[in-house]
Amino acid sequence: MSESIDPYYSRTSDTWEAAPRVDPTASDCPGPLTTDEVWNYAHDGFLFAQSLFSQDEVDEMLAEAKSLAENWPPSRPGIVREPGCDTVRSIFRLHRISDMFQRLFADERLLDRAKQLIGTEVYIHQSRVNYKPPMDGKEFFWHSDFETWHVEDGMPRMRALSMSVFLTESHEFNGPLMLIPGSHETFIRCSGKTPENHYEQSLRRQEFGVPSREALETLLHGREIIAPKGPPGSVVFFDCNTMHGSNGNLSPMPRVNLFAVYNSVENVVKEPFCDRPPRPEYLAERNIEPVALHLDSR
Amino acid sequence: MSESIDPYYSRTSDTWEAAPRVDPTASDCPGPLTTDEVWNYAHDGFLFAQSLFSQDEVDEMLAEAKSLAENWPPSRPGIVREPGCDTVRSIFRLHRISDMFQRLFADERLLDRAKQLIGTEVYIHQSRVNYKPPMDGKEFFWHSDFETWHVEDGMPRMRALSMSVFLTESHEFNGPLMLIPGSHETFIRCSGKTPENHYEQSLRRQEFGVPSREALETLLHGREIIAPKGPPGSVVFFDCNTMHGSNGNLSPMPRVNLFAVYNSVENVVKEPFCDRPPRPEYLAERNIEPVALHLDSR
Repeated sequence: MSESIDPYYSRTSDTWEAAPRVDPTASDCPGPLTTDEVWNYAHDGFLFAQSLFSQDEVDEMLAEAKSLAENWPPSRPGIVREPGCDTVRSIFRLHRISDMFQRLFADERLLDRAKQLIGTEVYIHQSRVNYKPPMDGKEFFWHSDFETWHVEDGMPRMRALSMSVFLTESHEFNGPLMLIPGSHETFIRCSGKTPENHYEQSLRRQEFGVPSREALETLLHGREIIAPKGPPGSVVFFDCNTMHGSNGNLSPMPRVNLFAVYNSVENVVKEPFCDRPPRPEYLAERNIEPVALHLDSR
Repeated sequence: MSESIDPYYSRTSDTWEAAPRVDPTASDCPGPLTTDEVWNYAHDGFLFAQSLFSQDEVDEMLAEAKSLAENWPPSRPGIVREPGCDTVRSIFRLHRISDMFQRLFADERLLDRAKQLIGTEVYIHQSRVNYKPPMDGKEFFWHSDFETWHVEDGMPRMRALSMSVFLTESHEFNGPLMLIPGSHETFIRCSGKTPENHYEQSLRRQEFGVPSREALETLLHGREIIAPKGPPGSVVFFDCNTMHGSNGNLSPMPRVNLFAVYNSVENVVKEPFCDRPPRPEYLAERNIEPVALHLDSR
């Protein structure tokens, strides 16, 4: 019977609740990370690798993203623009639409770390590039990605991680990714119900699946906020349940990040845990291909 | 004839323009600041004094502000609340409504620095306490206070300075004051006209008297952003034309600042430089009393 109980139910009542995580954060598989690095990742829910890619590689990624946006087929879903203008905010499903990004996501610097931490073969659940424009970039409130992926996409358990590659320098003033170390150990059940086509709004400003102020205060009690900073090519690996957000960008520099979610092939998405149809595939991949195969099949 | 030309005209056309400052930033009067400190202030447009007040003094200021808000007479103007709720965002005209703040603004640690930098006797043009609540505190876009004080209040020249006393620790994540060093040397004429009763909106979100993105890019070219951080009781002194702003507060800690504007008694406000009536006195004092006299007269 216990098999059938969802440990991560959420948006089922009017109140929030804190529940313990029931999945391990890191495996003990071998890989490029040291025992200390794996321990820190399991303890903090994230790991920062400065300058994992060179400026030349970053330039290639930026050029590819620019080219994708410029040649975007009008009928293809998966591009999000800033409210009220044409400025591109996000481009999705890079792992399907770009050979270059397919190769990158299979690069051992990312893939071997993902496989070591998750402990199985992995596939890409979602990938995108995010532009936070200079002086107009909006803040993104605290959230756990897993809450949304679980409720709206049907991802069963916490066996996924995100990686964010800095494509511009991440500094104090351009709205860097902020994380709450240790927050991944607690699942915050959010209040409210999921509205229809929620994703169309939530990519701009999320209202459901957002922790309450009170839940965050509980989570932050005795914990600090960390915003890893570094040059282009640096990478933050963070657990799918690590609470994170980002401030607005009032600096004259854009903040551009590449984002990919590696999920365990043993944790593929099912029916959503809410009574809504699944989100589009550019947000939640359902055509499961372990990452290494992307390369073999080309 | 040159006497009659306003060097700081603004909001008179549809385009922005950068004009040189024509007033000195600092005097060479003696006072508590060293020659280096005065030079740095003149060069950067601001000066940071860490822990100028003790925690006990800060506690007294916080208690006084709390008491003022709790006992606010319903008919008295000068209290601003967050949109859609009762949370207090700002309380104005502290120099008129509170003995404690009157004494504080006459404290030699503030007053002697203000007089040394401005070079004359001074009076308080505006004073307030600002609460940026935890997790909900909104960003404030870049602006020069002088532009507003000139156009909407009739402050003739750049002979005023602001001081911001941290009543909570100011850190990376609670939306600290950000300044652009050197920006005080350039006056950005803003585009557009001043709408009626602009102040009612602009205290929450300013739309006019805000520099264009292009103007800011010009101003920021080759310059950096600085956000002084420090414990409660630290003070930032900054010139009335120094471009500043602040990010949102996504941290669990409020950011509370006390703010007072010292203006030269030789630079008292006249008729506004726009065709609108002056703003209320809680925003722009017209009952001029040099600060020291506040104490003598009690």
